[in-house]
Amino acid sequence: MKAQGFANHSPTDLLEPFTFERREPLPDDVVIDILYCGVCHSDIHTARNEWGGTHYPFVPGHEIIGRVSAVGDKISQFKTGDLVGVGCLVDSCRTCNSCEEGLEQYCENGWTGTYDSEDQIGGTEHTHTFGGYSNKITVSERFVLHVPDNLDPAAAAPLLCAGITTYSPLSHWKVGPGQKVGVIGLGGLGHMGVKLAHAMGAHVVMVTTSPEKGADAKKLGADEVLLSNDPDTMANAMNSFDFLLNTIPVGHDVNPYMDLLKRDGTMVIVGALESLTKVSGLPFIFKRRNMAGSLIGGLPETQEMLDFCGKHNITCDIEMIDIKDVNAAYDRTVKGDVKYRFVIDMKTLNT
Amino acid sequence: MKAQGFANHSPTDLLEPFTFERREPLPDDVVIDILYCGVCHSDIHTARNEWGGTHYPFVPGHEIIGRVSAVGDKISQFKTGDLVGVGCLVDSCRTCNSCEEGLEQYCENGWTGTYDSEDQIGGTEHTHTFGGYSNKITVSERFVLHVPDNLDPAAAAPLLCAGITTYSPLSHWKVGPGQKVGVIGLGGLGHMGVKLAHAMGAHVVMVTTSPEKGADAKKLGADEVLLSNDPDTMANAMNSFDFLLNTIPVGHDVNPYMDLLKRDGTMVIVGALESLTKVSGLPFIFKRRNMAGSLIGGLPETQEMLDFCGKHNITCDIEMIDIKDVNAAYDRTVKGDVKYRFVIDMKTLNT
Repeated sequence: MKAQGFANHSPTDLLEPFTFERREPLPDDVVIDILYCGVCHSDIHTARNEWGGTHYPFVPGHEIIGRVSAVGDKISQFKTGDLVGVGCLVDSCRTCNSCEEGLEQYCENGWTGTYDSEDQIGGTEHTHTFGGYSNKITVSERFVLHVPDNLDPAAAAPLLCAGITTYSPLSHWKVGPGQKVGVIGLGGLGHMGVKLAHAMGAHVVMVTTSPEKGADAKKLGADEVLLSNDPDTMANAMNSFDFLLNTIPVGHDVNPYMDLLKRDGTMVIVGALESLTKVSGLPFIFKRRNMAGSLIGGLPETQEMLDFCGKHNITCDIEMIDIKDVNAAYDRTVKGDVKYRFVIDMKTLNT
Repeated sequence: MKAQGFANHSPTDLLEPFTFERREPLPDDVVIDILYCGVCHSDIHTARNEWGGTHYPFVPGHEIIGRVSAVGDKISQFKTGDLVGVGCLVDSCRTCNSCEEGLEQYCENGWTGTYDSEDQIGGTEHTHTFGGYSNKITVSERFVLHVPDNLDPAAAAPLLCAGITTYSPLSHWKVGPGQKVGVIGLGGLGHMGVKLAHAMGAHVVMVTTSPEKGADAKKLGADEVLLSNDPDTMANAMNSFDFLLNTIPVGHDVNPYMDLLKRDGTMVIVGALESLTKVSGLPFIFKRRNMAGSLIGGLPETQEMLDFCGKHNITCDIEMIDIKDVNAAYDRTVKGDVKYRFVIDMKTLNT
């Protein structure tokens, strides 16, 4: 099945039109006409080979919204015309403990990412998966999600990565009413963290160095702003947070944030893959504080998140772009110049 | 009330005989004739002002075992002749949330350490508390523990610090049968961690760079040894541990240990107050792993630990010394040349 999309062919190439194959649907496959795809910073890291190991040609995109155009023989949960989503994963071993618990993101035998992962299912000429910057995709039913009809489909696209990446830890660590929750950093992840924690009933504090971002966060649902570069304000806020969602995307000194936690509080890292500097044992030991990490979410939890967003009418704040402008959007994303996510309107692929 | 003990008068002085005052018992006080006192590495750090802020003269010692010699008017839980213990704390605010939960070690208004803490109760000429390297001590009832009579009192002394420091995280994180638990480092803390985790029913793995320490750990109850300086062995053990008790007393690279944990596993730092180097977000994020800290234990939990040790007949492996040899014992402790704790026989104070 022919598909059209955008790919780049080396770390320094721009993304450009690219024609490739999608597999014909297997009995448990869903074929999707893609309507919208979000632009995640991971797309850029991978396109530019900043994490190493990218296979070219590379088609990015793992925040996919579309409508079902065909289904395999065994499919009963989806029908043609359904509004659906696909996130960061399109396959996993399905047999390990994590997969059996619906935690495919922690698959012990290695999941298949929506892009640039070795394709275990096959059915096409290419060895690695191609992502959602394209007009269609064939995905195994288990990895396809129902999108509530009341949500704006374009603004729902980034829920599939930014949404679930923040929902999963907030839900796993049971954030809710009566808790003071800090969201550190206001980007694509942080802005979803604020909206979701607020909808979960927590008292939400935006932790940022920027008064402007603080003001923006209040519009998104934050109850308070804590300026992390003001030592007095930080000292006054010590030992006061039940939970911190740390969305800072680069290595940083976590100690000032750890000190914000109450005894037994937890800070979850969702952005920083790099080394955290100067991690002192002291704030951990003297208040039995915890630091953890969290990776996207499993498929059942992603569906739960979409249903939660449907119920609370939560989507992302987005800037819609034509696909021809995606390279410029990459440069703006790197500069942090987007509120808060670019979403590609896929009907511009043929214009 | 006159007391005799050993003190030093500057960071570079040796400990020497010292006469000082203990307060006359208040209505809720217990007066204890000290029989034994363990030598904790914290004693040395404080005596030598390695953490800063030590007040001199300084009397170390917070692993105290003795017999009740007198009680205040309001005391009903202790009587003359009872075998009792005192650990790292002799007072706290008693009103904050942590104190109300029996977690005095996390007192939000600051606890009073058994030595070198500002004495909030008073009744003597000195402003700071004097520790257990002495013949008697007056302690508020709440901070006095019953020691099971079946335990060797000398070998029970280090339970009051090394024992509770390892018991508390093992208990709080619910270590038990069916779990694979690693104890990292075999010193005073590590040897208790092995004994306690074994008694709790876990499959215990000694994680060490030293085959000799591995062999010793097996005698203490370890089921297996994992040599942490063998990359192949470490790679094979990845993702296999439910819990890690990290007793390394200095800053170190935690990443290789974090990789040993299963998804959702926790490593608890009990030894390293210094900076942990090269803490990468990756092992946290990709397996939702946790790192936490833990400080000694609260009084109810310390009593629970002593009762557990009584039931399982667990004490420390100790080397008994005369108090005149304490300075040499300090030097040997710094070199790691002790299996696994020096305990001072306090009757040698008058010889």
